[in-house]
Amino acid sequence: MTDTVVVAAATTETESKPRVNRRQVAKARTRIKVLEAARNLFAERGYDAATIRDIAKGAGMSTGAVFANFQDKAELFEAVFSDEMAALSEAFTAGVAIEASTSARLAGGLAAGYHQVLDHLPLMQAMVARSWFQPEDSDKRVREFLAPVITTISEVLQAGIAKGELRQDADVALLSRMVWDIYLSNLRRAAFDNWGIEELTPHAAKQMDVVVAGQLAK
Amino acid sequence: MTDTVVVAAATTETESKPRVNRRQVAKARTRIKVLEAARNLFAERGYDAATIRDIAKGAGMSTGAVFANFQDKAELFEAVFSDEMAALSEAFTAGVAIEASTSARLAGGLAAGYHQVLDHLPLMQAMVARSWFQPEDSDKRVREFLAPVITTISEVLQAGIAKGELRQDADVALLSRMVWDIYLSNLRRAAFDNWGIEELTPHAAKQMDVVVAGQLAK
Repeated sequence: MTDTVVVAAATTETESKPRVNRRQVAKARTRIKVLEAARNLFAERGYDAATIRDIAKGAGMSTGAVFANFQDKAELFEAVFSDEMAALSEAFTAGVAIEASTSARLAGGLAAGYHQVLDHLPLMQAMVARSWFQPEDSDKRVREFLAPVITTISEVLQAGIAKGELRQDADVALLSRMVWDIYLSNLRRAAFDNWGIEELTPHAAKQMDVVVAGQLAK
Repeated sequence: MTDTVVVAAATTETESKPRVNRRQVAKARTRIKVLEAARNLFAERGYDAATIRDIAKGAGMSTGAVFANFQDKAELFEAVFSDEMAALSEAFTAGVAIEASTSARLAGGLAAGYHQVLDHLPLMQAMVARSWFQPEDSDKRVREFLAPVITTISEVLQAGIAKGELRQDADVALLSRMVWDIYLSNLRRAAFDNWGIEELTPHAAKQMDVVVAGQLAK
């Protein structure tokens, strides 16, 4: 009796599963298409000038289909931003994973971060621009996406303290934010002076030397 | 004879002057009104969403009157930006004019710079946002407006080297840009964490300590 019930339940699940999956897959595909079209349009025009209508057009679907996945443009932008920050965070983590001085590890993180974004720099520019002029509640969420990168930087600094390279009283919170701000600021050179990875990498290394130099244990 | 000629010339000048002046004054007044309306609207909506039509409305004049003074929105924005940077440059220069360590002088410049912009922060936000997503040729002009501030910072660092406080080989160009980038980055705290001058001033002082610490002569 127990077996029969189990079998019946299993059968029902097996029968309904493909239908659910097909719908889920279709929905996920739509979402990916919309995000891709949004990425492209935000990169091309910036946040303000990109319209849901043109994003829908770029994705080859109706505005209704876009709105079925995202409440509004702001939510769409946050989804693009979130994906971007996740990729950037991975790059940072990989970049700092070297046996080296704190400055060199941080420089490694920044260099990996530039590698990650240089082939779609206009999107990053649109993101930084938007981050300066957006509703406050949106900024709160933006910071959550940023947190993993800041954490990675903090961990490098803390490791430097732990191994006695940096002073025990180094202000990790202050320094971590400074490193991130430096990362972002340099993107302007990439955008307006056409700096590539060959210029950005040694520049970031010098900047990390400046930041770390005063923090070295005597 | 010579006297007569001089008198005649003087008379002509006196007669024509008021007419020219009235026209010039009217034109200057219009320009000021348009710039004021533009400042307000850029601060309220950011660059993209501010329209010439609404700027004209804010100034109480026709769009034609706006276009008589400015070729397009980009030129209008640059004029607002230029005024803002001139005021900021003055503030920096006044802020660093103290007898103190290099770090304290730089911190004084930053603090004065925050004083200058805190009562119209949304305009600064719009400017920073725009600076990240604008045509390249516009960026070139933006840098010209920025040059005096960078020069002021450089001079403080050079003075530090000259008096033997900083190392002879301190990279003044690199450090100056870092100081400016730090100034800008902190404005985000003002915008999104409601930091006032009481929070920004000590924060900037700590950051200047970090930047200068590694540059001290042994």
